[in-house]
Amino acid sequence: MARVAILMGSPNDHAVMEAAEKVLAQLGIECDVRVISAHRTPARLTRFLAEAEDLGIEVVICGAGGAAHLAGAAAAHTALPVLGVPIDSSPLNGWDALLATVQMPPGVPVATFGVGAWGAKNAGIFAAQIIAGNDPAVRKAIEQFREDQAAKVPERP
Amino acid sequence: MARVAILMGSPNDHAVMEAAEKVLAQLGIECDVRVISAHRTPARLTRFLAEAEDLGIEVVICGAGGAAHLAGAAAAHTALPVLGVPIDSSPLNGWDALLATVQMPPGVPVATFGVGAWGAKNAGIFAAQIIAGNDPAVRKAIEQFREDQAAKVPERP
Amino acid sequence: MARVAILMGSPNDHAVMEAAEKVLAQLGIECDVRVISAHRTPARLTRFLAEAEDLGIEVVICGAGGAAHLAGAAAAHTALPVLGVPIDSSPLNGWDALLATVQMPPGVPVATFGVGAWGAKNAGIFAAQIIAGNDPAVRKAIEQFREDQAAKVPERP
Amino acid sequence: MARVAILMGSPNDHAVMEAAEKVLAQLGIECDVRVISAHRTPARLTRFLAEAEDLGIEVVICGAGGAAHLAGAAAAHTALPVLGVPIDSSPLNGWDALLATVQMPPGVPVATFGVGAWGAKNAGIFAAQIIAGNDPAVRKAIEQFREDQAAKVPERP
Amino acid sequence: MARVAILMGSPNDHAVMEAAEKVLAQLGIECDVRVISAHRTPARLTRFLAEAEDLGIEVVICGAGGAAHLAGAAAAHTALPVLGVPIDSSPLNGWDALLATVQMPPGVPVATFGVGAWGAKNAGIFAAQIIAGNDPAVRKAIEQFREDQAAKVPERP
Amino acid sequence: MARVAILMGSPNDHAVMEAAEKVLAQLGIECDVRVISAHRTPARLTRFLAEAEDLGIEVVICGAGGAAHLAGAAAAHTALPVLGVPIDSSPLNGWDALLATVQMPPGVPVATFGVGAWGAKNAGIFAAQIIAGNDPAVRKAIEQFREDQAAKVPERP
Amino acid sequence: MARVAILMGSPNDHAVMEAAEKVLAQLGIECDVRVISAHRTPARLTRFLAEAEDLGIEVVICGAGGAAHLAGAAAAHTALPVLGVPIDSSPLNGWDALLATVQMPPGVPVATFGVGAWGAKNAGIFAAQIIAGNDPAVRKAIEQFREDQAAKVPERP
Amino acid sequence: MARVAILMGSPNDHAVMEAAEKVLAQLGIECDVRVISAHRTPARLTRFLAEAEDLGIEVVICGAGGAAHLAGAAAAHTALPVLGVPIDSSPLNGWDALLATVQMPPGVPVATFGVGAWGAKNAGIFAAQIIAGNDPAVRKAIEQFREDQAAKVPERP
Repeated sequence: MARVAILMGSPNDHAVMEAAEKVLAQLGIECDVRVISAHRTPARLTRFLAEAEDLGIEVVICGAGGAAHLAGAAAAHTALPVLGVPIDSSPLNGWDALLATVQMPPGVPVATFGVGAWGAKNAGIFAAQIIAGNDPAVRKAIEQFREDQAAKVPERP
Repeated sequence: MARVAILMGSPNDHAVMEAAEKVLAQLGIECDVRVISAHRTPARLTRFLAEAEDLGIEVVICGAGGAAHLAGAAAAHTALPVLGVPIDSSPLNGWDALLATVQMPPGVPVATFGVGAWGAKNAGIFAAQIIAGNDPAVRKAIEQFREDQAAKVPERP
Repeated sequence: MARVAILMGSPNDHAVMEAAEKVLAQLGIECDVRVISAHRTPARLTRFLAEAEDLGIEVVICGAGGAAHLAGAAAAHTALPVLGVPIDSSPLNGWDALLATVQMPPGVPVATFGVGAWGAKNAGIFAAQIIAGNDPAVRKAIEQFREDQAAKVPERP
Repeated sequence: MARVAILMGSPNDHAVMEAAEKVLAQLGIECDVRVISAHRTPARLTRFLAEAEDLGIEVVICGAGGAAHLAGAAAAHTALPVLGVPIDSSPLNGWDALLATVQMPPGVPVATFGVGAWGAKNAGIFAAQIIAGNDPAVRKAIEQFREDQAAKVPERP
Repeated sequence: MARVAILMGSPNDHAVMEAAEKVLAQLGIECDVRVISAHRTPARLTRFLAEAEDLGIEVVICGAGGAAHLAGAAAAHTALPVLGVPIDSSPLNGWDALLATVQMPPGVPVATFGVGAWGAKNAGIFAAQIIAGNDPAVRKAIEQFREDQAAKVPERP
Repeated sequence: MARVAILMGSPNDHAVMEAAEKVLAQLGIECDVRVISAHRTPARLTRFLAEAEDLGIEVVICGAGGAAHLAGAAAAHTALPVLGVPIDSSPLNGWDALLATVQMPPGVPVATFGVGAWGAKNAGIFAAQIIAGNDPAVRKAIEQFREDQAAKVPERP
Repeated sequence: MARVAILMGSPNDHAVMEAAEKVLAQLGIECDVRVISAHRTPARLTRFLAEAEDLGIEVVICGAGGAAHLAGAAAAHTALPVLGVPIDSSPLNGWDALLATVQMPPGVPVATFGVGAWGAKNAGIFAAQIIAGNDPAVRKAIEQFREDQAAKVPERP
Repeated sequence: MARVAILMGSPNDHAVMEAAEKVLAQLGIECDVRVISAHRTPARLTRFLAEAEDLGIEVVICGAGGAAHLAGAAAAHTALPVLGVPIDSSPLNGWDALLATVQMPPGVPVATFGVGAWGAKNAGIFAAQIIAGNDPAVRKAIEQFREDQAAKVPERP
């Protein structure tokens, strides 16, 4: 059963967001990956978030570009932790998506990660870190992941 | 009866948004001014927009700061023209609000104006320009406004 | 008869601005597409705007790059609603065109949309939203467009 | 017993970070508030993080300005979720702290929040959202907080 | 007889633009200082530039803030050298005025100077440098100015 | 005899700066094109500027990238008008060259043009506009150039 | 024996950092080139810096991209001079790495150079300039390098 | 005898640059503090640098604002290590000074520090770190300084 939802504003964002999907698979966590546009399908977003917890979702990851509102809109509708990944899909190199995601007004937080695939991967790992809080197996998987990752850094270029 | 809705994310934004209110009053157009937070009171937004047209609203002006989603969220829920005013209320001088308002993805437009009170005034005038399309009295008021404004520019500083 | 004028500073801007043209055609609205440079052919701009209303123009869309003054210059010469599309044609990725379009001084509004083709498409839709205020057929076309657009968002990437 | 650590690079950052402290208190969560400089007292950071879990810490919040490395350095030393709050304490208005916090390389995530007190408050709420995953009382407190917050938004400015 | 015109978009800009006026007076060059808004009084601009050369004007200095089009609009209407001074009068610290002035499309140059009073003073000196090309007295005054300026730099702070 | 010097920091900048050269040739003005690095060959710069006027140079155009000091260094050593062209040759897209050229401290002006080839062409035209002040043939050439340029703007894209 | 350590956050950074290596070789200075990630292998960094001086290292050069903490982390652990090279490896064109490197808080300096290969080469030269302070042969090599470099600037493009 | 020269473009910069002076005094290193403008008194700069080494200067610190060329101009004239401190004295908050200092072209390095007083203090410490390479007393003073600095960081805000 999926414990993390990965939402993205457009199917084009999948090339970036699959970095989250992959690292979560690596850490043994199942995902529910969906395309939901905050602006074109707002009802789909509220509908999904209304039932997300019943579906077993514990963390929601949202990736979007431009005036990236998906994560903020999700955070407005659920008390689950919402992670935001800004995507550089406009001519402004992702500055728009970064600011539209991270500068949330006080009271409705979105945990924001770096622009693009780096951020997507990190959002995946962070979702696992949240889940690890009450799942020792995930906790162990993360520790193993960190060790492997350190071991893979070569000594010389 | 109000023909323009002026929405703002927080009562603090009123110091900026009253520039829209004032210029609309000057042009003989009544406003409905409300505080609606896209993130803290999302249901209030959908509820208002569902009945806005029945209330006689023809144009919606939204002012917000930070990751300013109010205008975009409004545009997602109504086919009425939505005007966005970015407000500089975070340490980033309004860059966040500007990008979060103007960089809407294709399909759901927000007509964006300058950061702060300049933009609020211009959004008010622009709302009147839209209404002028089918209201000759407003059209005449705008022309008078433009003439007066030109006449008020002094020849020497 | 054309109800929307689409002006652009250079023929090179057409690759971006045709997104406005296309969506307006889709919504059943005819356009008058012209190349007018605010700086190289300023007289052409004033001449066109002087007769635009007589030609049946209800909305003016202007696309330009760099120190993009076309929309502002148009707004200085007409009381019709002017929509601005910043185009990323200089090394500064469109930041110059965005600021030169959106930051209009109080009194002469330009409704600004996103940088590049996203913005051009949105300006087209927004022009239709203005026209819809007194044309139920266009209003219906916009609603249909919004429904189709929502329906086309796939559930999965 | 403290479940959230709030670390800051300098005592001057407390004016910002106390927003996290306050909201956590409101949500019934105890904090351990410390000054640890990533650059001036790096050993203090490793020492604290080595024992943080034994102390009962479940989430680490780090606030810093300038080339804000505190959150990243913390994330390098613990598998606990690390939240970063960029603080605007240099002449660059917080852009430096924002980028130095959010643009973490893939593999070592920092969940980043907005610049300044908005971000600090949101980091506090988000820490509670993480804890809520295995603490129904905190979950209930968050839901109450969200309801109260919505109720406090006035209808009119 | 005035040889340099100093135009500004609003009387508020005079606090900045008087730096140009002062340095020109110091260099023995008379100015014609006017308020002309590119957007609110465009006809006034064309009218003035049509007769500027007959009035003896050799150089035109334009100061404006926000989407600062005054210099560009002047350059569109005269073959005289046009100097632009970006003024920081919006929340964006002058970035808008700088880009709207300097990023002119190829074919219609505006010689741009720094943001604010520094730029206004430099525009004044530069206007004199242009005039010095066919006026040895002005040339001598500039050389004297440069020497005096160097002499006034103290050896120690 | 050359009346305009075109200096550039590196031979790589020639691809951009030849736009100045070409437009000056078109306007009948001869150029002296040189590579002079403000940082690697500072003595070459002072030497050239010491004799520039004797060589008949009336205007100095400087193109450089990165921390572009060439124009500022030239302006420090000559009372002739110095025009600066920022070149986008670093990863920062020309922002560095733009600011390092335009933000000259008060007292030593550099007339700055747009980033890259647009700016180079405009600097060339502007140099001719300066020379036109005491050369009616150049003045006529500029007017012809402006007319031709306007005529070349097509009516339709 | 190596007198300069060149550290980089990832083997991908080598394409940029080899510019430092090459210029140091040219100046007769041996390097110790290593991959050390501030975030993935923090212990490797402390271990290396603890023994760096015993290994004969006099200067440490660090290159990293994104939230580039490597140089700052090194500076926290050694009293040797640390030079930082920001690398443009994220979608934000190196702005993130530049600010994360240069905006160090007071007390722990990182000498920062330009973004990318320009900066890497300059860091190499600067390391040699430091070493030249007590090594006349290196001092001579630098002077020769500067002369050769000046001589290689062609007179014409 | 002074071993470090502290140069600044204007006496106004002293408020910032005295942070360098103070920390050097604390570390037992004498300074020679001078006002030299790269643009208004370029000859003074070359003259000072020609004799700097004979005066015993080992490191040159330069602070300047706007299009801050002082450090780059110094680096062009001396093989001594040059440290640059960008000062925020224009409306652009120091971005201009930062880029004009750090983005030096390859071959002529300037070691750059943070904007304003933070950077000035760090440049002072870094100058001492360079000198420490052949002066064990300074080396000891730096180590003591680092220890004291760490000890002064309070445990709690």
